[in-house]
Amino acid sequence: MADKNLEDLFYETLKDIYYAERKIVKSLPKMARAAQDPQLKAAFLKHKDETEGQIERLQQVFELIGKRARAKTCAAIEGITEEAEEIMEEFKGTAALDAGLLAAAQAVEHYEISRYGTMKAWATQLGMKEVVALLDATLAEESATDEALTGLATSAVNTAADKKAA
Amino acid sequence: MADKNLEDLFYETLKDIYYAERKIVKSLPKMARAAQDPQLKAAFLKHKDETEGQIERLQQVFELIGKRARAKTCAAIEGITEEAEEIMEEFKGTAALDAGLLAAAQAVEHYEISRYGTMKAWATQLGMKEVVALLDATLAEESATDEALTGLATSAVNTAADKKAA
Repeated sequence: MADKNLEDLFYETLKDIYYAERKIVKSLPKMARAAQDPQLKAAFLKHKDETEGQIERLQQVFELIGKRARAKTCAAIEGITEEAEEIMEEFKGTAALDAGLLAAAQAVEHYEISRYGTMKAWATQLGMKEVVALLDATLAEESATDEALTGLATSAVNTAADKKAA
Repeated sequence: MADKNLEDLFYETLKDIYYAERKIVKSLPKMARAAQDPQLKAAFLKHKDETEGQIERLQQVFELIGKRARAKTCAAIEGITEEAEEIMEEFKGTAALDAGLLAAAQAVEHYEISRYGTMKAWATQLGMKEVVALLDATLAEESATDEALTGLATSAVNTAADKKAA
């Protein structure tokens, strides 16, 4: 077996996050349709547009490292989105649905923040400056999305979930 | 169908993270055995001990809300740990193994940070002060673990993964 190095690990993880982003871009419109709060709906749709840009950035990263853009099934995002689907079913039509959707979206963001943080560190180690800049742009968007969702949670969504039920 | 509220959502998510922590406590010794860097090994074992304490805190939360401690399959952690197992197989004996293990552990931490952050916000909304304190103690540990892993990544593990391969 040929020794594998950090470049190989970077490439494997790139294929994994490429799969994840393409899954997320399909999942967000479903979550937007399910959401009751108009601000939450808007946040999901805004992030869907951002995700399309993030997929393009990943395609640029593949190009920069001289590899064809390929997706590799990402078991983590499969599991995280499966939980989002469960929430949509189990809490359909209830006061707590939006709070559950929001939590599911934050689990997705945290997975992405972890992955992009790791890949940025590896790209830095490997001296790939252009790649670092692309990953950093996406990382900033994911962090901003997570903060916006936290803002929505504490300002409106959790209160609504609690009050309507009381 | 009876209307479900934030308390129901909290309880569902509690069962989910209870499953996740019990999965993680089994996974960490495997990751420690696989790790090459002694500091990384030690970090995994330290976090295994912390996770045992976190499981006990979750049992206290179940008690405080008057429910029996139950686990519910958490598809997200199944997927995240499946990816960790893949890394251990694919990068076994290579210079990049530790960097891959470290990344997998950070994906686990970020999932937990997301879940505990959400549950703390819900417990705050529901006015459950003792529960908030328990969740907050765990959240602080998870964040500290994530930072310690980032420190290890940038100081030693990624450099080793890159140099050995060069």
